[in-house]
Amino acid sequence: MTVEVLRLGHRPIRDKRITTHIGLVARAFGADKMLLPERDENIEKSVCSLVENWGGDFSIDIVGDWKSYIRGFKGTVVHLTMYGMPVDEAIGDVTGDVLVVVGSEKVPRFVFDNADYNISIGNQPHSEVSALAIFLDRFFDGAGLKRDFGGKLKIEPSTSSKIVKSE
Amino acid sequence: MTVEVLRLGHRPIRDKRITTHIGLVARAFGADKMLLPERDENIEKSVCSLVENWGGDFSIDIVGDWKSYIRGFKGTVVHLTMYGMPVDEAIGDVTGDVLVVVGSEKVPRFVFDNADYNISIGNQPHSEVSALAIFLDRFFDGAGLKRDFGGKLKIEPSTSSKIVKSE
Repeated sequence: MTVEVLRLGHRPIRDKRITTHIGLVARAFGADKMLLPERDENIEKSVCSLVENWGGDFSIDIVGDWKSYIRGFKGTVVHLTMYGMPVDEAIGDVTGDVLVVVGSEKVPRFVFDNADYNISIGNQPHSEVSALAIFLDRFFDGAGLKRDFGGKLKIEPSTSSKIVKSE
Repeated sequence: MTVEVLRLGHRPIRDKRITTHIGLVARAFGADKMLLPERDENIEKSVCSLVENWGGDFSIDIVGDWKSYIRGFKGTVVHLTMYGMPVDEAIGDVTGDVLVVVGSEKVPRFVFDNADYNISIGNQPHSEVSALAIFLDRFFDGAGLKRDFGGKLKIEPSTSSKIVKSE
């Protein structure tokens, strides 16, 4: 089973940090890759250098024609949107390989029509970063967060300080 | 019981959107207010106009001397940090009025020392936005997302389109 996250509506300067956070959330919560319609070297650099240190084989791919990618995806396409069905009602139906589509404020109608599931993380405005985190957390039933990434750097959880072990 | 979110390390230009997302997550997932050490009118405007339309009584307060605020807080101070104890082990101990401290990359040692609990949402780098969402989701046991905010605008969840009802 693979989980891919397609980030739509990324504007290189305005969204740099939000899209980077989406990439980091995708990785930390158990997804395999983030897909972007267009190359953005800043995002790729930030995320790849983190993978280099913290482990796992998370990657960023450029998909170009994202509509064809969604149409051709062999698996379940989930669109995260505040207008969709509550995650706790819908999550049980999502199985197999998953493509999670996260947009920004304006997502083309195409995505609603071509997703297998339009899913909301609450029906209030918040953030694509938190929506993705909650979706993946529910999808992996909390296990995404407990994964061992086998990285050069590892944190030893502590009640009171920063303990980082390096290989 | 009240839940407040103190956002540290906000840099007005660089962090505008991240801090706004933190405010929206705080509200959508059930917190009562976001506290900032210094005034930022952009953030206040974005969040307050959203509250005006979508309801609830979420507010933003300026605390000035945040160290005194943490020290004087009558309740449980939780610091969200990737170095802390796993949320699923620690969350059961967090009760009563809560002050959740979310920082940026560099959080002063003071916060570690003065928090009642240093809690991690996984021990991998991701985002303060997702960390706050998962913490509040666990703390309210998923109920934060189901709250009725009684706003002028309301979404009717849909499998296939955007349905917004206005008062």
